[in-house]
Amino acid sequence: MYNETLLMMPGPVPMPESIRNAMTRQAINHRSQEFGDCYADIVRILKPIFGTKNDMLVLSGSGTAGLEAAIGSFAKGKKIVSLANGKFGERFSQIAAIYGESLMIESEWGHPLKLEELKENLENGAEVVTLVHNETSAAILNPAREIGKLARKYDAIFILDAITSIGGDLVETDKWEADVAIVGSQKCLAAPAGLAAVSVSQRAWDRLSEARPFYLDLKKAKKLADNKPMETPTTPAVPLFLALREACKLIEVEGIENRIARHHKMSAAVRAAGVAWGLVPVPQTDELHKASNTVTGFFYPTGIEDSQIRGFCKKMNIEFAGGQDRFRGKIFRIGNMGIIDAPEILVTVAAVQMAFKKIGYKLEDDGLAAAIEILSS
Amino acid sequence: MYNETLLMMPGPVPMPESIRNAMTRQAINHRSQEFGDCYADIVRILKPIFGTKNDMLVLSGSGTAGLEAAIGSFAKGKKIVSLANGKFGERFSQIAAIYGESLMIESEWGHPLKLEELKENLENGAEVVTLVHNETSAAILNPAREIGKLARKYDAIFILDAITSIGGDLVETDKWEADVAIVGSQKCLAAPAGLAAVSVSQRAWDRLSEARPFYLDLKKAKKLADNKPMETPTTPAVPLFLALREACKLIEVEGIENRIARHHKMSAAVRAAGVAWGLVPVPQTDELHKASNTVTGFFYPTGIEDSQIRGFCKKMNIEFAGGQDRFRGKIFRIGNMGIIDAPEILVTVAAVQMAFKKIGYKLEDDGLAAAIEILSS
Repeated sequence: MYNETLLMMPGPVPMPESIRNAMTRQAINHRSQEFGDCYADIVRILKPIFGTKNDMLVLSGSGTAGLEAAIGSFAKGKKIVSLANGKFGERFSQIAAIYGESLMIESEWGHPLKLEELKENLENGAEVVTLVHNETSAAILNPAREIGKLARKYDAIFILDAITSIGGDLVETDKWEADVAIVGSQKCLAAPAGLAAVSVSQRAWDRLSEARPFYLDLKKAKKLADNKPMETPTTPAVPLFLALREACKLIEVEGIENRIARHHKMSAAVRAAGVAWGLVPVPQTDELHKASNTVTGFFYPTGIEDSQIRGFCKKMNIEFAGGQDRFRGKIFRIGNMGIIDAPEILVTVAAVQMAFKKIGYKLEDDGLAAAIEILSS
Repeated sequence: MYNETLLMMPGPVPMPESIRNAMTRQAINHRSQEFGDCYADIVRILKPIFGTKNDMLVLSGSGTAGLEAAIGSFAKGKKIVSLANGKFGERFSQIAAIYGESLMIESEWGHPLKLEELKENLENGAEVVTLVHNETSAAILNPAREIGKLARKYDAIFILDAITSIGGDLVETDKWEADVAIVGSQKCLAAPAGLAAVSVSQRAWDRLSEARPFYLDLKKAKKLADNKPMETPTTPAVPLFLALREACKLIEVEGIENRIARHHKMSAAVRAAGVAWGLVPVPQTDELHKASNTVTGFFYPTGIEDSQIRGFCKKMNIEFAGGQDRFRGKIFRIGNMGIIDAPEILVTVAAVQMAFKKIGYKLEDDGLAAAIEILSS
């Protein structure tokens, strides 16, 4: 009934067979050595991928659940500044507004963040800073290191949404002074959707909120994770833990440096194709703000409909993302998260080129050749 | 490294192969017809199992997440009365205390609830009533119908935790006037842990709280579920949805009446065994309060250690539950949720009998024979 589709989305992403098969394990008691070992393996492998020695907790919920756990556990009633240059930055601010005194410092989607404005707010007593590291809605990579430095200078807690960067791009949680960092399972880790891993610094624990949500209480998660064997406060989504462990093991085998280099190369190939085609990239980069290395976005030329390009490719079972909200119909975004390698990039770039040819739109140059140039280097 | 264990717990429970294999599907876009169809199948099949025509939403989180979603969406700032005669009743009250003015009406664990006290509180303006239908910690089945009637009489919202009863015992959400009812995936539905299904009445929607949590906001879940194809607000745990759909289909094949009859028979067999052994049942039943039909609990005779019975069986790879919190070491509980049938009951009852024999404890009578009597009827 449904065909296999090549998912070139900024998550969820294709999963290797061994990850999917890990979920077929018969039900186990989640208060057992077997489950505790699985949790411990995930934490052991994820810590260096996060670049952290902090505590690491895994929650049965999406990346968004991880963000809310961070805000709900550490930012309740506080002055929270959220930097936003895309949909997920804005959404982080919405979550913040539920728990604290929230202020959003907004840029145009895909435009550089306003660090001067952040600085002013920190001078005026902002206690928590939230940042989306890799803003997929606008395919931009934000300067986490510099923002972390600013937050620390003013003694604010820095919460880093690294949902779509960890496991595919460089994240140095401790060096960047991120008190809380969050990853989602179905992005660069290439595991199934449904889990969030969250790292928490001692500085954050020292400022724990007194009233916290129940399901997403990080303090309780920490208390149970400290048990031997490791446990979770409520029944965890066991099959997803087993799959995430397998995904982590595959990352260990590849090596995180190799994996990041691969992500950089794949996104560079897509960027090269788009530039050769003469399309305008979505992100406005500067010294600090770079194009994302895990998803690449371009504006459609005037008069081109989303259905003509993305719809055409989808009919060939190649699915990448369009624009969200204010970018709907205006951009397309090709993800290269997880296990995406040269073959998937080749076929996707070729399909886009074919779609433009099909409608008789004259592209500037041969994007596929430009991608091949990068991929074969 | 780990052996297959027969899980006779009050959840998680053994899963048929087809349910486990459903999770191996390659990643799909969760904003697609395929995912929407899966969600729609679950809702279609679950509604009659809940006994409801209300809206049905599936959350990527444990049963506890479902409870918090109900409280956070409909009870914020309200006077909430929680009836408790076990661990989960108490925990529901803890969740209520985070969001509203919470009062717990406490009974001894496994003893009847205090309906007179509930009535007084309703007369004095209680706006929300929470109840754990099947309190597994004390193996007691609470009178949801009567409590629903009381709540409605005083125009209170009735939130029914049916996490461990729906799919294995009779639940009539609409007849019992439960405005919100919650089931967990890894209990009587025999699906993997990690999802909660929540039904919501129009009466509850009419009293929606203004400030709601983000991840567990039922209003947003409803808004996205109303899309065609059906969607979720944040990325759902797709493999768990696929598995839950398969679990629902198996229930459809068995027929919910047959399934409930099977659960009743299996628990009756375990009860008969315990009574024949001369053990004291955990629940104190009366006209309204019954022994659970999905988990059966007995006190250990004085001097018997948990490890001598439960530990012994666990070494034979038969795992059932001990007591929680104040019942730790004092009781054992044998679950019969999901697909548990005569063979699993036979081997478990026989193993317990063997454990008592092993330590030279003289049981009153032959429990296995009593169980067989029931099972063969």
